[in-house]
Amino acid sequence: MKFASFQIDNTASWGLVEGDSVADLGNRYPDLKSAIAAGALAEAAKSAIGAKRHPLAKIKFLPVIPNPDKILCIGLNYENHRKETGRTEVENPTVFGRFANSQTGHLTNIIRPKVSTHLDFEGELAIIIGKPGRYIQKSEAWGHIAGYACYNEGSVRDYQRHTHQFTPGKNFPSTGGFGPYLVTPDEVGDVGPLRLQTRLNGEVVQDTTIDQMIFDIPRQIEYCSQFTRLEPGDVIATGTPGGVGSRRTPPLWMKAGDVVEVEIDKVGLLRNGIADEA
Amino acid sequence: MKFASFQIDNTASWGLVEGDSVADLGNRYPDLKSAIAAGALAEAAKSAIGAKRHPLAKIKFLPVIPNPDKILCIGLNYENHRKETGRTEVENPTVFGRFANSQTGHLTNIIRPKVSTHLDFEGELAIIIGKPGRYIQKSEAWGHIAGYACYNEGSVRDYQRHTHQFTPGKNFPSTGGFGPYLVTPDEVGDVGPLRLQTRLNGEVVQDTTIDQMIFDIPRQIEYCSQFTRLEPGDVIATGTPGGVGSRRTPPLWMKAGDVVEVEIDKVGLLRNGIADEA
Repeated sequence: MKFASFQIDNTASWGLVEGDSVADLGNRYPDLKSAIAAGALAEAAKSAIGAKRHPLAKIKFLPVIPNPDKILCIGLNYENHRKETGRTEVENPTVFGRFANSQTGHLTNIIRPKVSTHLDFEGELAIIIGKPGRYIQKSEAWGHIAGYACYNEGSVRDYQRHTHQFTPGKNFPSTGGFGPYLVTPDEVGDVGPLRLQTRLNGEVVQDTTIDQMIFDIPRQIEYCSQFTRLEPGDVIATGTPGGVGSRRTPPLWMKAGDVVEVEIDKVGLLRNGIADEA
Repeated sequence: MKFASFQIDNTASWGLVEGDSVADLGNRYPDLKSAIAAGALAEAAKSAIGAKRHPLAKIKFLPVIPNPDKILCIGLNYENHRKETGRTEVENPTVFGRFANSQTGHLTNIIRPKVSTHLDFEGELAIIIGKPGRYIQKSEAWGHIAGYACYNEGSVRDYQRHTHQFTPGKNFPSTGGFGPYLVTPDEVGDVGPLRLQTRLNGEVVQDTTIDQMIFDIPRQIEYCSQFTRLEPGDVIATGTPGGVGSRRTPPLWMKAGDVVEVEIDKVGLLRNGIADEA
């Protein structure tokens, strides 16, 4: 099953994506996070038969989870990206946070802020937590996942490097693409062999399989749930592979008019334009 | 005026603190953040005359803002703390985030997690944002502050140092003391000369005046509002002075049965016990 969060006629809703339309389930639960928290995705999907439908072409995609309690980002989690940044090996995942308002949905614009030209892409697989928990064991981790989506963890590199803490560069409004929708684990199967590609204006700039991660998904869930309680709808952006624009010679920055795509087999294709801040 | 968030008879509310009681204003706005967002603190305070009162001894203090959209923490913002950590000077504030569930209220226990014994204190002045904004100028910054409170930015140092990103060590549940209440700027006046003291079991472990900050409050608001839109109820923990336990020889860790206090002139006294995780 695929579930999207969207806006139509200035009203936020969510629903089941089937083909080129979405069945509006906003009358069942106010948002996708609430439906996940209620453990009601399968039940809600059944009720889609009688639901109102919108063509995908008519909706405005919102971030898959517009209102997560927490967005945890795993840094430096592919060996070729760790190497290109010159960082040393570590025994635990590198984790930093994004705030919800730094996100934006599929087919919306990622905004380059007026204070920087150093806007970079980071294609990632995002997991969305279903079952809450603390001190989750690796062996139990997969059971805590409600679904997957693509994430473009857009980064403003000069602000990211002002100090050793990444937070400023990772939280500019509307820089984190998250979409197009949540795909449930039964449709995705084993994530290891899945190919993740990032393309900028059609050119492949990042290309990996998920099994190239340094810290795999169970380890990420285990570690994050040690220092915080994971809640339904929480997002873990699982890290980006090598190829980021800032480590190229010359650097490759995203600019107004560009189109950036993150595509992951079986998970979807997230596409965003780039626009300058108004 | 002083406003507290609290729980009584298992119901969350907020109100105006007067002497040793609080006038319950929960029927006016659902929480303190909503009242701040409505610009209604002064109006709400007027309605306190006819409101139900609770003795402070009967309420359970909640974090001053239990549900902030964002908690931005300024790191290494006093010279004696920067030096004790061996960090180099930087031109911009160091910023990282806490999630709301890492907070706890006045007179509650700070929880030492079962996975670490390296629980440290960080006494700080917190500012609570009143008027929202992006790209706030330093000259306008004071006008965006709804009030002040004490913060104990409790840190689990081994997790903080697992990698270069502080997030894991700064987000354990119920480690961030925030209280006792919001004090409005008219009662506080110039924050520069105010003394900030942290005491562990009665012994002074941190002692500074606020004017010893490296990046002052207007600069913090200016910088944070460059990379994110500040919203009503957002919290900025403005940094801790030297004297933290982890930089002592031998290190001084907080443990079950300890009592930690953060006191700031005109702002209040935040007291928390320490307890082991159940």
